[in-house]
Amino acid sequence: MVSVNKNAARIANRMIEEEEQLNINSFSLDNQAKVIDAGIETIGGYRAGKYFSEICLGDLGNVQFTMDKRPKVQVSVDHAVVSCMGSQYAGWSIKVGDYSAMGAGPARALSRVEDLFEEIGYEDESDVAVLTLESGEMPDEEVADYIAEKCGVDTENLYLIVAPTTSIVGSVQVSSRVVETGIHKLHTLGFDINAVKSGCGSAPIAPVAGNDLEAMGKTNDCTLYGGRTIYFVETDDSEIEEVIEEVPSSASEDYGSPFLEIFERYDRDFFKIDRKLFSPAEITINNMKTGSVFHAGSVDEEVLKTSLEI
Amino acid sequence: MVSVNKNAARIANRMIEEEEQLNINSFSLDNQAKVIDAGIETIGGYRAGKYFSEICLGDLGNVQFTMDKRPKVQVSVDHAVVSCMGSQYAGWSIKVGDYSAMGAGPARALSRVEDLFEEIGYEDESDVAVLTLESGEMPDEEVADYIAEKCGVDTENLYLIVAPTTSIVGSVQVSSRVVETGIHKLHTLGFDINAVKSGCGSAPIAPVAGNDLEAMGKTNDCTLYGGRTIYFVETDDSEIEEVIEEVPSSASEDYGSPFLEIFERYDRDFFKIDRKLFSPAEITINNMKTGSVFHAGSVDEEVLKTSLEI
Amino acid sequence: MVSVNKNAARIANRMIEEEEQLNINSFSLDNQAKVIDAGIETIGGYRAGKYFSEICLGDLGNVQFTMDKRPKVQVSVDHAVVSCMGSQYAGWSIKVGDYSAMGAGPARALSRVEDLFEEIGYEDESDVAVLTLESGEMPDEEVADYIAEKCGVDTENLYLIVAPTTSIVGSVQVSSRVVETGIHKLHTLGFDINAVKSGCGSAPIAPVAGNDLEAMGKTNDCTLYGGRTIYFVETDDSEIEEVIEEVPSSASEDYGSPFLEIFERYDRDFFKIDRKLFSPAEITINNMKTGSVFHAGSVDEEVLKTSLEI
Repeated sequence: MVSVNKNAARIANRMIEEEEQLNINSFSLDNQAKVIDAGIETIGGYRAGKYFSEICLGDLGNVQFTMDKRPKVQVSVDHAVVSCMGSQYAGWSIKVGDYSAMGAGPARALSRVEDLFEEIGYEDESDVAVLTLESGEMPDEEVADYIAEKCGVDTENLYLIVAPTTSIVGSVQVSSRVVETGIHKLHTLGFDINAVKSGCGSAPIAPVAGNDLEAMGKTNDCTLYGGRTIYFVETDDSEIEEVIEEVPSSASEDYGSPFLEIFERYDRDFFKIDRKLFSPAEITINNMKTGSVFHAGSVDEEVLKTSLEI
Repeated sequence: MVSVNKNAARIANRMIEEEEQLNINSFSLDNQAKVIDAGIETIGGYRAGKYFSEICLGDLGNVQFTMDKRPKVQVSVDHAVVSCMGSQYAGWSIKVGDYSAMGAGPARALSRVEDLFEEIGYEDESDVAVLTLESGEMPDEEVADYIAEKCGVDTENLYLIVAPTTSIVGSVQVSSRVVETGIHKLHTLGFDINAVKSGCGSAPIAPVAGNDLEAMGKTNDCTLYGGRTIYFVETDDSEIEEVIEEVPSSASEDYGSPFLEIFERYDRDFFKIDRKLFSPAEITINNMKTGSVFHAGSVDEEVLKTSLEI
Repeated sequence: MVSVNKNAARIANRMIEEEEQLNINSFSLDNQAKVIDAGIETIGGYRAGKYFSEICLGDLGNVQFTMDKRPKVQVSVDHAVVSCMGSQYAGWSIKVGDYSAMGAGPARALSRVEDLFEEIGYEDESDVAVLTLESGEMPDEEVADYIAEKCGVDTENLYLIVAPTTSIVGSVQVSSRVVETGIHKLHTLGFDINAVKSGCGSAPIAPVAGNDLEAMGKTNDCTLYGGRTIYFVETDDSEIEEVIEEVPSSASEDYGSPFLEIFERYDRDFFKIDRKLFSPAEITINNMKTGSVFHAGSVDEEVLKTSLEI
């Protein structure tokens, strides 16, 4: 099987070569780990956001942009479980000294510190590791050492690409998770995600918010109220019938208000929010084994407009 | 003039290099012909579908994806007659022993076994040949020998790329024919297709069906009821006026039901179906000689929803 | 900072390599300047239009196509002021002997004959120069000498890419200016455009018109009545509040009729038309400093339909 880290390293090297063009900045730490600032002290842009998102997907997906009333990402992915869950999902909680950030992307398939990896079977073999960090703070040598060690690579072969939620790249990369978010929800519902083979989706791209709290609100709303996905699966229809109505975000009792309102309602305790909320607004599942098509949910223009102000 | 086969061979080689990433499989037959399985024993995906479709077009067109309620292909083509009729059109009926499949793509412009080639004038000069086969069965050495011989190339320089209608790649590549389908209809109406210079179109991508019959139905409906095209032509306005109302699928008496229903109505005899049905739903023709714009037809959401279940 | 000319020369060289595929023609003048005919004696196409437009943007932006009822360009740009105003804007009036055309693209950042350059600060350092000309006439040696001299490059390092407004490439490249047009309008309103960091937009692509006058009308209407943009800026909210309602084309008294009607109303005197008309139909400004979002204007389907006849 293809190596998501080797794939992603190709894109990371391109980001470094094109850093001026992409309006980003790259440098090496003292331990030779390569760091790309895609939005902390830099502006970035949609092109950088595309690269960042395709790195997250281990280059097993493609990200494009369209503009209607709002800008939108168009995402298609192959090897859906490897690309979305084995790589893109922001599931590696990095805490080193004072530094803490959620790690996403290919390096997760080397460190494999998450339980999830037992289920999905994929294990990357690669001497380079690429991790993206959603953070407003740059990682230092200690952080890089920690990550490299967990991944079993030399620090000089480690790429860390960082963008805060409050940045153009941040907005793009969260919306580019729309296909992954639905697979994660399927997982939460007990669906065997290894049945998911391929997928496609779109979501509006949030305007850059003024602070992390608002950014979290707006970027979540893009998926929850504006995300649309289709999955190509191989399973029995009954497995899909059992979950389909529960997949879209609207299946949650918390559905219906901008995410920030919900978050405040639960006194900013993320873990009190109904897990069932985290999903695209509209979902289609196509069972390739039978040809059956299942569809649930719909985009909620009203909440989107309230949240995104577009 | 550019060689559609040499163009396509570049993409075919990329497919072979990226086969793991694309979730497809390639191998060589005993006679060294290269075969790519893009959906029989493999899953494939949208990226493989893009490559397959751009091979069909001899790399004279571009295929992208968007996702609204449904996934859609966005196709733009240059040298419209060469790319669509000289290459993409599935006009070469291959029958060798028990094997039978419709051949599409560049190799047709080498074998030139179809009458059509007298009209369009294009003849490729190339020592490599690339043919796509819409089939659920892999071609063997005998099939490859036959095709190579008809194309006047060594079997080791022959690429056969295969995908059944009931596959992700199959769904993508049929919808990617939307611009070609309209040119074919223009041809049926007696319009001089050499006047068509360039074109652009879109069509929904069918969910993967459970069997060939349903796949034929759904993939046809994507074009007939959801396809939209614009053609840039150079001719007299009167030539367009004469045909424009007859171009969209709605000009056919058989229009209005999902294709499968129509097919059953004629006792599954394909040749009893009105030829005028096979066309995009909505068509614009822009005469570059005069600046005139002609438009006919419209997308039929209701039939699409009935057929695609999305 | 990145060189827009060196960037653009890479694309220009690709156009020359792929000229047959792109349905265009390139040649060298006696003084070795390279000229690409992208629509005068050639047909061109959307792919050539994409390259032409990305050359205009100094490869700091990306152009894609979608097709709904009408074909549309999807444009995203980084380094918005450099790419749009320092490069893409058609601000260099070239008059040499009988030849006159508006020059657009990277070479403007070498010649810097326009006042605008004092404001935007960008000065390219490059020994190659790339200029696009919207014209129905080919430039000759004298024109090339003049441009090369103004740019301080050897004529053999000069690329001139030409397309008339009445061509496929002409239609694409004008609509690809949608993001630039809004920045220009912001500039007209006294907004400090250096605050604009990045942007994204879309606009319908005009059918090819029968003459320059109608082409001017239709291509303008695509932006004025169909253009949508979002800008990512860093400034004070009050600066945006002051201008936002004035930004879209609808802020102009002349708004509401197809451009050609307005032009005729002022006896074909371009300079009598209200400057405030020249802007996209719908505009969003996102202040990354505060997270505020401002929105004004909307697409005018009716005028679009009247003008484009689709």
